[in-house]
Amino acid sequence: MKLAIDSTQNSGSIALANEERVIYSAYFDIKITHSETLMPAIDYAFKFCNILRSELQEIYVCIGPGSFTGLRIGLATAKGIAFALGIPLYAYSSLELAALPASGLGKNIFAAVDAKMQEVYYAYYDQQLKEIIPPSIATPEELCNLDLEDFILCGSASEMLALRFKNSYNFYTLHPVMKIPSAAGLFSIPNLLPEKHFPQILEELEPLYLREARAQVKKAKPKQ
Amino acid sequence: MKLAIDSTQNSGSIALANEERVIYSAYFDIKITHSETLMPAIDYAFKFCNILRSELQEIYVCIGPGSFTGLRIGLATAKGIAFALGIPLYAYSSLELAALPASGLGKNIFAAVDAKMQEVYYAYYDQQLKEIIPPSIATPEELCNLDLEDFILCGSASEMLALRFKNSYNFYTLHPVMKIPSAAGLFSIPNLLPEKHFPQILEELEPLYLREARAQVKKAKPKQ
Repeated sequence: MKLAIDSTQNSGSIALANEERVIYSAYFDIKITHSETLMPAIDYAFKFCNILRSELQEIYVCIGPGSFTGLRIGLATAKGIAFALGIPLYAYSSLELAALPASGLGKNIFAAVDAKMQEVYYAYYDQQLKEIIPPSIATPEELCNLDLEDFILCGSASEMLALRFKNSYNFYTLHPVMKIPSAAGLFSIPNLLPEKHFPQILEELEPLYLREARAQVKKAKPKQ
Repeated sequence: MKLAIDSTQNSGSIALANEERVIYSAYFDIKITHSETLMPAIDYAFKFCNILRSELQEIYVCIGPGSFTGLRIGLATAKGIAFALGIPLYAYSSLELAALPASGLGKNIFAAVDAKMQEVYYAYYDQQLKEIIPPSIATPEELCNLDLEDFILCGSASEMLALRFKNSYNFYTLHPVMKIPSAAGLFSIPNLLPEKHFPQILEELEPLYLREARAQVKKAKPKQ
């Protein structure tokens, strides 16, 4: 049995899969913190599906970019369970998860999630989820001057970006029902990106913040 | 508050939305009957979201085609709640729900769900979900000789049909993560199909069986 967790956005999502298929998934966006919802949701999923903790063999977790607190809670929960049961933990980016529903449709994919403070986290992929532009952070204005072909826009920031992009690019947007992030997608990423599928070493696995990383780059660069 | 129910396939799904957004959705495919999972899942959703029954204002339900027993359980549950609370019930086809994730992507949509007995239920839509071929039933072989342009194939039968279609048509398939039916989609169908959005009269609302309807047509036609 496999468990997937995504708490990198305002909403949260968990899923369970056996060797064959996804057997359970839940999504929640109820304005109370992930620390109050995540473990009860996981606990109920196991009870509903009549699964024992000892049956869990793998954990999949989304490590960001996204809400700082949210992604830390998700990663801490996943590490805790992986440590306690001695099972492997696999980690993927929230932008890969957001892009997944648009894969295989013959177009490049622009995935963007809300970074607050008038910025978005974004990445640009081909239809097989290979990175063309790696995960980055920018203002919506900055994103209107990239060299992009026909693409599908997805992720939690896509509605806001669609308004900005309409005079700059030729693009499609995923239907809103598919912008609801489902942690179940984490089980499918390895099929598209086998080179990214390796168990993480718990003490080395860090959240994918992006904004901090950018601050550190600036700090490291001495003033002229 | 709105509740959506889909138990027309082997898997089941429920969702809750307020005026602004989907706040909860759950999907389950655990090989026990909808009669054992549906009400507990609804009950838990209300508890998890801290919502009172009295806050429910509308119900959305999928009426088929699909599993005969499953869709009757879903429809009976939805009618029961609508009757008890005196609130409106809205009904949509499982093929519209299956097609929804592929809408707005610039291509026609072929939605197909498993009808067992080597047949599929299917419908063909434009990208705005307007019917080109209404809900019907056929064998996969019969479906290889239609006059179809570039399209996106979706629904629970799409994996099986993709193998049959590859020599007949030019098409894309939705990523498997998007073939997981989400009842949350039922909240979005009215935006695409406002002409189908009217409250149902409980005693008149029948499941959309298709197969029975076809049998009745044959019966009604006198032998030559």
